[in-house]
Amino acid sequence: MKNPIQVAVTGAAGQISYSLLFRLAAGELLGPEQPIVLRLLETPEALGLLDGIRMELEDCAAGSLRGVVATSDPETAFDRADLVFLVGASPRRPGMERKDLLQTNAEIFSVQGRALASAAQPSVKVLVVGNPANTNARIAIANAPSLDPRQFSAMTRLDHNRAVGMLAARTGASPGDVRKVVIWGNHSTTQYPDLRFATIAGESALSKVGRAWYEQHCIAALQERGAEVLKARGKSSAASAAHAALGAMRTWVEGTPSDDWTSMAVFSDGSYGVEPGLVFSYPVEVRGGQWQIVQGLDIDDFSRERLRLTEAELAAERDLIRHLIH
Amino acid sequence: MKNPIQVAVTGAAGQISYSLLFRLAAGELLGPEQPIVLRLLETPEALGLLDGIRMELEDCAAGSLRGVVATSDPETAFDRADLVFLVGASPRRPGMERKDLLQTNAEIFSVQGRALASAAQPSVKVLVVGNPANTNARIAIANAPSLDPRQFSAMTRLDHNRAVGMLAARTGASPGDVRKVVIWGNHSTTQYPDLRFATIAGESALSKVGRAWYEQHCIAALQERGAEVLKARGKSSAASAAHAALGAMRTWVEGTPSDDWTSMAVFSDGSYGVEPGLVFSYPVEVRGGQWQIVQGLDIDDFSRERLRLTEAELAAERDLIRHLIH
Repeated sequence: MKNPIQVAVTGAAGQISYSLLFRLAAGELLGPEQPIVLRLLETPEALGLLDGIRMELEDCAAGSLRGVVATSDPETAFDRADLVFLVGASPRRPGMERKDLLQTNAEIFSVQGRALASAAQPSVKVLVVGNPANTNARIAIANAPSLDPRQFSAMTRLDHNRAVGMLAARTGASPGDVRKVVIWGNHSTTQYPDLRFATIAGESALSKVGRAWYEQHCIAALQERGAEVLKARGKSSAASAAHAALGAMRTWVEGTPSDDWTSMAVFSDGSYGVEPGLVFSYPVEVRGGQWQIVQGLDIDDFSRERLRLTEAELAAERDLIRHLIH
Repeated sequence: MKNPIQVAVTGAAGQISYSLLFRLAAGELLGPEQPIVLRLLETPEALGLLDGIRMELEDCAAGSLRGVVATSDPETAFDRADLVFLVGASPRRPGMERKDLLQTNAEIFSVQGRALASAAQPSVKVLVVGNPANTNARIAIANAPSLDPRQFSAMTRLDHNRAVGMLAARTGASPGDVRKVVIWGNHSTTQYPDLRFATIAGESALSKVGRAWYEQHCIAALQERGAEVLKARGKSSAASAAHAALGAMRTWVEGTPSDDWTSMAVFSDGSYGVEPGLVFSYPVEVRGGQWQIVQGLDIDDFSRERLRLTEAELAAERDLIRHLIH
């Protein structure tokens, strides 16, 4: 019998986690033969609600779920954690300015960064899902100096999946035949979904969908997809975000296929001229649990403009919380 | 490439379906190599909401999901359906009498039974999740005379899983080591969770947990578990119900392990003295997609009393909607 993997999830009583936890319990992350312990973090006020979710997890009688820890203490939640999903974040409330939103979340992710550094496995992998995800990840990194910034990423896998799904729907292909989509930059409306390298069953995606549809419709539709779902559902994307989080962490552990890459927002090393230290989404290949930014892709003028725009937004976010990352 | 399986889900914009659909899309029912088409039924008022869910399904870019049909027409939803989850039901509203609840749902399940008979695959399997599940299944059966009553079951797998989970939690065992739990009767508080034959890692469960705990605590706790979850969450069990539905259908297709059985509410043939034609939960073995009631289990006085109680409740429910099943 394998040793259990410790998987921590914050914001554990929220909507995304409600879609995520039961799939983790069912063994969808690392297979049903890999025992896991779920370590759930919530605010003190949500612990009653979280107890109901703990009951439901027990009611699944899932063979791979070896235990559930429910707590409001970050160090307890992250104790010896191998894999961490930082899902919880403070949502934007009516009348709240962007600066206040960044500040409120900066405080949460400072605390969690410190707790990760002191309590988690030295080899921990941390996926930030809670928004503003890139900048939240930047703050967690700054507050966990004993961990390598490479152990953190912010999730742009939902954007990546949306681009794959949209190409498949547009062409009638199976999503499984779509390769080499790229999401550059911030998980926000400035993201640049770059389909120039994408293929569908081995053929150029742009040659199938047309450059006009891509430039004039598809990019904006992907940037606004979250708002569209919110409008239809009356709630933010939850199950699709959980699906993306599961896929992102699985890829980080198991690697990318030999003929594909994924998109991950990671600590920039300056690749593609992006300011080092921003948490920026790049095309990455993953081998042996380590991601590498795909190098040498051509950046045309159209793309350079969009990269600069999303980079500028991330730099502006960073400037608003600069006092917390020094 | 295999032909896609047509999987229909009613109440598709509800909470249980929101936990179920994305796991179906991810290939958890029949494996990621089996393409599926999801056929989603909702009321006309909920189609806007359902469109948001359809978008989120597309955003998962799941390779096995070959299409999504969203409709308010039962015959379209059930068109050539292979596997059907009847999740949608009318909930009990404040001040509503039991008779009214049964009547409202009876109308829904009459319509759906007729649509299944006319539109679904002749070999369709129909799992009723929406409550009152047993009697709803009875009505669907009566309205689908061209189908075999054996093609319908009502879900007691959540109760079954809860019993397994409770035994595992009580003894510190893995749920995967628990075998031969039985849920008899109605998916309601009169159900009889029978642990007399249950084993944990090959040893008698009752010898580990004690008959006193079983009789004085465990049975009532299982009967009231749904209410406990509702109290803690402020909402009914959803993710655990979806997990149970997935497991119940998978077992129906793939079979029970050689050393175990499951609980399914099925059209009674009179086994164990239960009135024929009631949809009653029994221990069943499944082979080749066909369930068989486990025969020859000893019914002691304690058990006989509980079987009669839950049978009487089902007969009373049937009497209230008798005019719809003749």
